[in-house]
Amino acid sequence: MSDASRQSLIEQLKMLFTDQITTSISDREHHGRDPGHDVPMPPDAVIYPRSTEQVCEIVKLCAQYKVPMIPYGVGSSLEQHVVAPQGGISLDFSKMDEILQVNPEDMDMRVQAGVTREQLNSHIRDTGLFFPIDPGANATLGGMASTRASGTNAVRYGTMKTNVIGLTVVTPQGKIIKTGGRARKSAAGYDLTAVYIGSEGTLGIITEVAVKLSPIPEKIAAAVVSFDSLEDAVTTVIETLQCAVPIARVELLDQVQMKAIKQHSDLDYPELPTLFLEFHGGLASVEEQIKTVEDIAQGNSGKDFSWAEQPEDRTKLWAARHEAYYANRGLVPGANMLTTDVCVPISKLPECLLETRADLDEAGVISPIIGHVGDGNFHVMMLYTDEQKTMIDQANERLVARALKFEGTCTGEHGIGIGKRQFLLDEHGESVEEMRKIKTIFDPDNLMNPGKIFF
Amino acid sequence: MSDASRQSLIEQLKMLFTDQITTSISDREHHGRDPGHDVPMPPDAVIYPRSTEQVCEIVKLCAQYKVPMIPYGVGSSLEQHVVAPQGGISLDFSKMDEILQVNPEDMDMRVQAGVTREQLNSHIRDTGLFFPIDPGANATLGGMASTRASGTNAVRYGTMKTNVIGLTVVTPQGKIIKTGGRARKSAAGYDLTAVYIGSEGTLGIITEVAVKLSPIPEKIAAAVVSFDSLEDAVTTVIETLQCAVPIARVELLDQVQMKAIKQHSDLDYPELPTLFLEFHGGLASVEEQIKTVEDIAQGNSGKDFSWAEQPEDRTKLWAARHEAYYANRGLVPGANMLTTDVCVPISKLPECLLETRADLDEAGVISPIIGHVGDGNFHVMMLYTDEQKTMIDQANERLVARALKFEGTCTGEHGIGIGKRQFLLDEHGESVEEMRKIKTIFDPDNLMNPGKIFF
Repeated sequence: MSDASRQSLIEQLKMLFTDQITTSISDREHHGRDPGHDVPMPPDAVIYPRSTEQVCEIVKLCAQYKVPMIPYGVGSSLEQHVVAPQGGISLDFSKMDEILQVNPEDMDMRVQAGVTREQLNSHIRDTGLFFPIDPGANATLGGMASTRASGTNAVRYGTMKTNVIGLTVVTPQGKIIKTGGRARKSAAGYDLTAVYIGSEGTLGIITEVAVKLSPIPEKIAAAVVSFDSLEDAVTTVIETLQCAVPIARVELLDQVQMKAIKQHSDLDYPELPTLFLEFHGGLASVEEQIKTVEDIAQGNSGKDFSWAEQPEDRTKLWAARHEAYYANRGLVPGANMLTTDVCVPISKLPECLLETRADLDEAGVISPIIGHVGDGNFHVMMLYTDEQKTMIDQANERLVARALKFEGTCTGEHGIGIGKRQFLLDEHGESVEEMRKIKTIFDPDNLMNPGKIFF
Repeated sequence: MSDASRQSLIEQLKMLFTDQITTSISDREHHGRDPGHDVPMPPDAVIYPRSTEQVCEIVKLCAQYKVPMIPYGVGSSLEQHVVAPQGGISLDFSKMDEILQVNPEDMDMRVQAGVTREQLNSHIRDTGLFFPIDPGANATLGGMASTRASGTNAVRYGTMKTNVIGLTVVTPQGKIIKTGGRARKSAAGYDLTAVYIGSEGTLGIITEVAVKLSPIPEKIAAAVVSFDSLEDAVTTVIETLQCAVPIARVELLDQVQMKAIKQHSDLDYPELPTLFLEFHGGLASVEEQIKTVEDIAQGNSGKDFSWAEQPEDRTKLWAARHEAYYANRGLVPGANMLTTDVCVPISKLPECLLETRADLDEAGVISPIIGHVGDGNFHVMMLYTDEQKTMIDQANERLVARALKFEGTCTGEHGIGIGKRQFLLDEHGESVEEMRKIKTIFDPDNLMNPGKIFF
């Protein structure tokens, strides 16, 4: 389409939405980049809808002018989901931050897509319930749904796939549909909720999200334990899972990651492969879980088992974990950082980690490794200078190839976006054609976040 | 298409598959009915493939002749999923019963679609693991995936939606694709696995299923407790869930159901609303769970709390639960039985159950109620004579309308099949059009189990 008709669309939107739309270069550039990529691909305009109905109006107009639409939460996703390679209209959900319904008895709630994880949890803090999905960033529920997010709690509480019970979606044709419902399970027809979860805005725009909540456990305890080798650490996790310990969090930090965290925070642990653990349950249950895991860890040469039972100690521990991103940036001030996201069957994790560590050490890349080890998901954060860009991309390609060799996936929780489109083909081969069929029939004009997931 | 070309197809299949295909009237009729419906709608032939490749050959030939294909597991589904209203070829999976891979360290396994639940669990009995989805019938994994099955363990362990990690599917075009993978989670592209789970054979034919396994808990204990009212029983369950008790099973049986079970088995419990409970965990954890639930039940006037700690007592209890179907048939020998399957948010359960009980009592229908109450899912088994058929269908319509009024679903776990197509429209309205788009693009000639899910 011509620039002229794109301009006409923006004029119309400005008339209809006056103070809710901006074309300032700073706003456009801000909405055209993410934390992993510095060079922006800005949209032509940014609009701030206030309701599903407004999204509907915007979608209908964009569809009429055949202009791309890109939904935007807080911009914390890492695979360029929010950038606008073909220009278009960025729909920023920050004004759609209303809590719509809380049902404590049914342990569910419904929010507008712009509500953030922390806002949601803060709203329900007096109900004895919480929303367990924690990707680190204070992302929006809409963004988390769109990327099938998970995080440190997934080993116990699942991912967005298992915790979203329903969605409101504006289709590319501007129709408002509701998927799922409030029943805890249903066998009624195709699972449209699951189709939209993880579709990265390419099939429609999620405007409301209904989620399951979990009861806050009576007792929470956290622990840290170090190992001489990654194998011992992973074996400890495998045995813990096989013993049916309902572990709530289990994070693996390699020696490089531990060094970075020590430099960044005042946590004082050895620079060795380390597990951060968290236990949830009744008093007796947590005590029992702890005993089981201590025994298992000791059987695998675990040492320096230390406890964080007080809330402030736990907070310090998990804050350090969540600040790994910044801690790692501190390792090489001014360097770029690529965050990878492969996930493999847990039995393959030691071999995959060791090969990766050796590969990166040989290439001379400073690269802490941190992982949601209960799920087999780990992130390598590769620090590099501009000159090293190609070398780093190649190391990432080798990492993904290695994960696929071990029957894993190119992305555990970050999504495909732009950078992993080839990896999606490598991983899913012919079945990508079936995915593409869904894209084609839902969005025949390819206006919904074009250029993401598929080439 | 003409009968002649249908005949040509069958001749070709007979040449290729010799002793694997039958057109005998008894085989066809057997494959054209399910336990809920006596009058058969037989396919034109029944074929017994032995491999994914053979399914592929069969699909290509059927597609060439534009003849319907109907996958068949053990025929235990209840909504006429396996019948052949337009004739066609029934693909019986009983010869595809191979265990393909067991990975104890990763707690997953892969089987051919004709493997039954009991066969699967028997195969892994020495690993310390089990597959928790238990719909009652000894169904095949392919059938369970196709109907998004769940059952008594779902409150703790989830449904087929959450326990299947990957599928092999033959598309309507005869292409073999693999969905999902062995990683515990993935954000790589659309969730095709979830698209096929619950699609009732209308999008392609599932030939292999990969599932997560769970560790057998150290301790299992079961209990029975009676209440004067349904409200008290349900309130006990709500409070149990809110207290974060990881209850493994919690079944509600109403007074009519208890009467039927007492007549059928030698269990001796009062004819009152009753909960059957099961607790899984470490020794201390189970003890703690039991204490919490006993306290909650007492607070809600629960009485006659009795324990089944020995395996044989537990087996007796759950056998009685699983035989409810036959026990209920015994209430009115020779009667027909309609098994309904609505599911509502648990807070709405008491009101929904009481309205249903009153409605059915007023209509004079003998109708035990039994439910997976932790999920809000309950089955009413309505016994009726041929003359009462219309009246029963109307009672079921009122039941579904009531469930939808309470924000529930027309089917928690049985699926849509033929009988619930109107209910699907009532429940999902405009979004059914989006489901239909997927059907149209995947199966443009409507050859995959036609007449199911959609009119």
